[in-house]
Amino acid sequence: MLRDEIYDQGKRARKAARVMASLRVTQRNEALRWMADALMSHQESIIAENKRDLAAGEKAGLSAALLDRLRLDHARIESMAQGLLKLIDLPDPVGQTDRMFQRPNGLEIGKVRVPLGVVGMIYEARPNVTVDAAGLCIKTGNAVLLRGGSSAEHSNKILSSVIAQAAEKAGLPPGCIQSIESTDREAVGIMLTMNQYLDVLIPRGGGSLIQHVVNHATVPVIETGTGVCHAYVDEEADLTMAVDIVNNGKTQRPGVCNALETVLVHRSVASKFLPMLEKKFKEQNVVIRACETSAQYLEECESATEEDYATEYLDYIITAKVVDDIHQAMDHIAAYGTHHSDVIITASYAKARMFLAEVDSAAVYVNASTRFTDGEMFGFGAEIGISTQKLHARGPMGLEELTTYKYVIYGNGQIRE
Amino acid sequence: MLRDEIYDQGKRARKAARVMASLRVTQRNEALRWMADALMSHQESIIAENKRDLAAGEKAGLSAALLDRLRLDHARIESMAQGLLKLIDLPDPVGQTDRMFQRPNGLEIGKVRVPLGVVGMIYEARPNVTVDAAGLCIKTGNAVLLRGGSSAEHSNKILSSVIAQAAEKAGLPPGCIQSIESTDREAVGIMLTMNQYLDVLIPRGGGSLIQHVVNHATVPVIETGTGVCHAYVDEEADLTMAVDIVNNGKTQRPGVCNALETVLVHRSVASKFLPMLEKKFKEQNVVIRACETSAQYLEECESATEEDYATEYLDYIITAKVVDDIHQAMDHIAAYGTHHSDVIITASYAKARMFLAEVDSAAVYVNASTRFTDGEMFGFGAEIGISTQKLHARGPMGLEELTTYKYVIYGNGQIRE
Repeated sequence: MLRDEIYDQGKRARKAARVMASLRVTQRNEALRWMADALMSHQESIIAENKRDLAAGEKAGLSAALLDRLRLDHARIESMAQGLLKLIDLPDPVGQTDRMFQRPNGLEIGKVRVPLGVVGMIYEARPNVTVDAAGLCIKTGNAVLLRGGSSAEHSNKILSSVIAQAAEKAGLPPGCIQSIESTDREAVGIMLTMNQYLDVLIPRGGGSLIQHVVNHATVPVIETGTGVCHAYVDEEADLTMAVDIVNNGKTQRPGVCNALETVLVHRSVASKFLPMLEKKFKEQNVVIRACETSAQYLEECESATEEDYATEYLDYIITAKVVDDIHQAMDHIAAYGTHHSDVIITASYAKARMFLAEVDSAAVYVNASTRFTDGEMFGFGAEIGISTQKLHARGPMGLEELTTYKYVIYGNGQIRE
Repeated sequence: MLRDEIYDQGKRARKAARVMASLRVTQRNEALRWMADALMSHQESIIAENKRDLAAGEKAGLSAALLDRLRLDHARIESMAQGLLKLIDLPDPVGQTDRMFQRPNGLEIGKVRVPLGVVGMIYEARPNVTVDAAGLCIKTGNAVLLRGGSSAEHSNKILSSVIAQAAEKAGLPPGCIQSIESTDREAVGIMLTMNQYLDVLIPRGGGSLIQHVVNHATVPVIETGTGVCHAYVDEEADLTMAVDIVNNGKTQRPGVCNALETVLVHRSVASKFLPMLEKKFKEQNVVIRACETSAQYLEECESATEEDYATEYLDYIITAKVVDDIHQAMDHIAAYGTHHSDVIITASYAKARMFLAEVDSAAVYVNASTRFTDGEMFGFGAEIGISTQKLHARGPMGLEELTTYKYVIYGNGQIRE
């Protein structure tokens, strides 16, 4: 039975997690090195398995973009291996004492970082997530149960088996890296309610995958991803800077969650700013969906609907809306945003402060591109995803976000009166 | 329609939360003072409403213990008011910058504590939770939507209306404290999936309530409560200290989650320790459910079943089991524990360290009573519950655990290359 199989994997992961929690960082780092070496020495077989996925994908009519995401070549395998090696140099959050204090009765209480335990990853096309996520989990002393997309079935299978074997050879407990082999959708359903074996689920992929996990999981979830990000061009904005930031946010890489989807423009600069923006966007083939007022200042545009305001295009499309002031801009963001990343472009000290204080998003910017919401760009050295919820972690999640804490209490016979 | 009503409350709460997030702590503290005053000046009507609940409870045959939990008198109302006033003096976590750093491109990134937003509380009999939870949420800049148990219907209704009116008079936004008046169970179901209006759900009460919330909520949940807590009496334990700690853990207040449910005894001290413990427990009328080996050393006991090992008695009953060594003790805790609070009693430095490192619970003790797992005892000054999950918060949750963070990013035109 599929359920029994997956529960057995869960049980093994839980057992491995207990051992992982006591390993020293040198052992975890050593395993990362072995995993990287193993990837490099298995390149040919990885590429061969990847070809099977590519062939199946072509047959199934996957788009060129999706096929490209799926493709593994020598350079990409080396880059995954490099990613593992890079983790070795990052500081280890595990065992760090966040604080330690003494109570009047003499109890000494320490708050100590520990691994989460078993992390469940559910993800889609990119096979590199298999390696990245496993590496991050191993570095932080967690066991991981991986469930990749069926379009990368053979790639994921060989990648996880290569790194799992290497980790075990390096002395890590068997079961610390496992992947679910069945491509049956039911497998996801089983993971979602496997509370006794999974401490957290991290879904990565499109909006419908993430919503499915959020709606059906009883295991605690870290919601990642969806970003309807806004730029508000204030009346006191440097308009050239504003064009650069909006253009960068939209076009530097439109298919990602921290890309811009909407530009809000103060009424008093709309007639000047929107034509400047349109000129830049014409070079980049960006389609503007404009509110009625914006449309007056644009040569070419489509009409924005209510639905557009809430849409994550992930494409060369942007919504433009004219607002009366910063308050209306912030109301719009509160109504349609996804609490991901939003930016104000302004020269006003007061409005910068107001926007930073009042916009309720994981990353709130003044005069910079929202494309910086990223573990690498924030200097975390690694990232397992970008959280759009408020519990546990918000924004880019690095190593520390893959840990929790426990209280350790040193007594000498204290009892409660 | 009930759903429309509750969604309207959610909408008002969300709106209030936006305002709350920008209030200064002096305003929030002022509201707490008004709320305390209002409780004191409405004592008679609160007691009158409470009498209606008590009468209904008696009629419904509630136990004396439950009726006592339900009862409000002058002393208890004053104690609730004092609780609100005590919050005023606690340091405000909101606005605190956890860290601030600069990136090579000149971006300055700050990680700043902010309120969670809207907190949903679902709880059972005790009406004081209404006031405690609202106070904690107001102090931390959150809006709160309360849903108490139907047995305290009239008490909760007047308490929440008295403090909500006081908060509003003190200048807080309307809707920052609301309670759901319908006693229909459907109301809970509606709250559980109100993701657009609730940022977190905190259930407080019995195991079945908490499980219901965990199993059906799509809103992120902080699981609180269930504690199958263990004491392991090591072969190197001071046995007199061990008796005191086990007795305190079991009998000082048996009905709470940090009370002990199981004592694990090293084989080599079982013959000496168990009779000592039995003597003490006879004075306290504690029933011992013993494993076969333990039973040999006890005059009177019942037989422990597999089910007992996993049971949170919340009563004058304890399971006793003899183990071969610390490893078997830790295996038992891993198999049957709820990751709440566990203690080793030992004089061995090495075993104390091993237990602290390897037991995966929110609070792990050496030589002290598990009854200290409590916000008050930890010195947090206040507590909204004790988390038994690993995401966001673990163990006693004070003010900081009712906040999250956001990144504020100061740029001067940075775009991503």
